[in-house]
Amino acid sequence: MPGTDAMKLRKIGSFFVGGRTVTLDGLPVEQRRLAIGAAPRPVDPNGDHVTGQMYVQEFRLAEPRCPYPVLFWHGGGMTGVNWETTPDGRPGWLTRFLEAGFDVLVSDAVERGRSSWSMYPQIYEGAPLFRTKNEAWDMFRMGPPGSYATDAAARRPWPEVQFPPEAFDAFAAQWVPRWVGHEAMTEAAYGALLARVGPCLVVGHSQGGGFALQMTQRYPDLIRGVVALEPSGAPDTAGISDALPPHLVLWGDHIADHPVWTRYRGAVDAYVSALAAQGVPARILDMPQEGMAGNTHFLMMDRNSDALAGRVIDWLAAAAEAAAR
Amino acid sequence: MPGTDAMKLRKIGSFFVGGRTVTLDGLPVEQRRLAIGAAPRPVDPNGDHVTGQMYVQEFRLAEPRCPYPVLFWHGGGMTGVNWETTPDGRPGWLTRFLEAGFDVLVSDAVERGRSSWSMYPQIYEGAPLFRTKNEAWDMFRMGPPGSYATDAAARRPWPEVQFPPEAFDAFAAQWVPRWVGHEAMTEAAYGALLARVGPCLVVGHSQGGGFALQMTQRYPDLIRGVVALEPSGAPDTAGISDALPPHLVLWGDHIADHPVWTRYRGAVDAYVSALAAQGVPARILDMPQEGMAGNTHFLMMDRNSDALAGRVIDWLAAAAEAAAR
Repeated sequence: MPGTDAMKLRKIGSFFVGGRTVTLDGLPVEQRRLAIGAAPRPVDPNGDHVTGQMYVQEFRLAEPRCPYPVLFWHGGGMTGVNWETTPDGRPGWLTRFLEAGFDVLVSDAVERGRSSWSMYPQIYEGAPLFRTKNEAWDMFRMGPPGSYATDAAARRPWPEVQFPPEAFDAFAAQWVPRWVGHEAMTEAAYGALLARVGPCLVVGHSQGGGFALQMTQRYPDLIRGVVALEPSGAPDTAGISDALPPHLVLWGDHIADHPVWTRYRGAVDAYVSALAAQGVPARILDMPQEGMAGNTHFLMMDRNSDALAGRVIDWLAAAAEAAAR
Repeated sequence: MPGTDAMKLRKIGSFFVGGRTVTLDGLPVEQRRLAIGAAPRPVDPNGDHVTGQMYVQEFRLAEPRCPYPVLFWHGGGMTGVNWETTPDGRPGWLTRFLEAGFDVLVSDAVERGRSSWSMYPQIYEGAPLFRTKNEAWDMFRMGPPGSYATDAAARRPWPEVQFPPEAFDAFAAQWVPRWVGHEAMTEAAYGALLARVGPCLVVGHSQGGGFALQMTQRYPDLIRGVVALEPSGAPDTAGISDALPPHLVLWGDHIADHPVWTRYRGAVDAYVSALAAQGVPARILDMPQEGMAGNTHFLMMDRNSDALAGRVIDWLAAAAEAAAR
C-alpha cells in the first residue's frame, strides 16, 4: 500500500437514494422556541415527511486503478464513520482503499446518521434500541464476558486484544440508535444504491455484512465481489446459484467464548460451505488460524487494521480483475 | 476559482469532540431480534451511554493556500450534508472551498446526523421536532407563503427563485429531527472543537450562523473571521468588544415577505450595527441589493451558489491575510 501518499480526487460529494413521502394529519400543533433568542412559534407536524432514504458519501479518485468502486456498508447501531479514522486516530479503511486506487462510496444505513430517521409511532412502529458500553464491550469481544467497567482503568480486555482498549470510550461516541424490523426498508435502499452505482464491489460489516450477502444473491449482475466482515447473518441457501460472484468472509478471535457469535458464525460458515458446494468461489479467513490473535468484532479498527485492509484489497483486486475479464 | 481541478488531499478523516457518559439504571430489559435470521435476545438499556458528542469530518489539503481551516456549521434540523453536493447535483461549498485552497472541517451538530442522539426522557428531556416539507417550503422562502403542494407540479415557487424547485424533494431527504433547548450542549461541543482545531475561520448557516456569532464573542482569539449565512439569531450586544474579528452576514431575497425572517434579520442587523459602532469590521451582504434576486434561505445550494462561494472565499482570504499580519 502507498502509505501516506496524498490522495488526488476528482469528486467529493454525496447523494441520497430510496425513500418516499408520507403525509401525516390530525396531530396537535405545538408552540416551541426554535433558535437562540427567538420567540416561540407554532410547529405543525402535519404534512409531508420523507422516510426510508439513505445517505451515500462518494469519493472518486482522479485516477482510480480499479474499474469498480468499493461500497462500504456498516453494521447495526453504527454509521459510515466506522470506515474513517480509527477511534485511536489512525487512518481507517476509507483512506487505505483510496490509497490503493479504489473509488469509495460510504453509506449511512437507513434510519442512521445522515440518513435521518422518522417519527414514531406515526411513521416507524416504535422506539429504537440504544446500545450501552457495557453490552458493546461484550458483544464486540473486547474482553471476557462481564469484564467491562465504567472506570476505564478497571476494565479487563483480552491480554492480546487488537482493539486499542484506551480508545473504547472514543469509539462509543460513534454509536447511534437502531430499530429492529427495518430490513426490507434498508434492503430497498441498498437496491436503489446498486441500481444507481452499477457494477461494484461491496464490503459489509456485521449487520451490513448480512445485507451484503443478501444483496449479492439479489444483484449478482451488479456485485462483482463481496467481503463480509463478521456478518451477523446469512441469507437462505435456496437463493444460491453459480452466477454469484466471489465471496470472502473474515472472522476475528474469541468467537467460541461468546454464544451469540458462535451461533451467528455457525449459520454464516454453513452458507459459505453451500456457496462452495455450488461452485461459487467462497473463502473464510479465520484470523487466529492465519496467525493473528486478538481481533475483535471491529476488525477495521483493530491495531492490525492496515494488515487486514491489505488482505481484503488484494482479494478484491483479484476479484475485480477476474470479473473484468 | 479553479473549477474542476482535482483536489489533492493529505487527510480525509474524522473525530468526535465533547460529550460525557451517563449511566442509566432501573429500566426494563426487552427481548428483541437484532439481525436477519437471528433469534431474539435480551436487550438491556441500563448501563453507560455517551451523550453530547459532536462528529467532525476533516479534509486536509496536501498544499493548503490559507493558514486557517474553514469550519462549516449547518443549521437547525440539518447535517453537514448541507455543504456537500447540492440537491440538484452540483458541487457544493465543501468542494469549492477545497478547490480554493482551504482545509475544511464539516461538523454534524450535537444530536444530528453522525453525532447521534440520546434516549428520551431518560437523557434528553423530550421528543424532537420533525420539519415537514410544507413548513420548510415557506420557512426557506421557496415561494409565497402557502405555495407548497405535495404534488411537485402544483407548487408555486417565486418566479425568480434561485433554489432549483425540482430539487426540493431531494433536499428534503437531508433533513433530520431537532430538539429545542440544547443550545448549551451544542455550544460546549463547538467550544471543544475550537480548542482542538485552534485558529480558524467559521462559516455558519441559520441556527449555525447564530452559534458562529455567539462563539466568536467567546473565542475571539481562535476565530479569525466569521461568516453568518442568514443567521436565525444574534448574541447579546453586551458581549461585543473591539477584540472581535471581522464579520460578514449574508441575506437572500424575500425577507420582507416572511414575518419570522423579518424579525430574525432585524435582530441580526442591529447586532452588526453594534459591532461596527465598536470598530469591529462588520459587513452585511444583501443579495437583492447586490443585484442577485431570488436567493432562498439556503444560499449555498441556490443556482448561484458558486458566485456566492466566490464572494465568501474572497472575503475570508482577506480576513485570513489581515489576521496573519
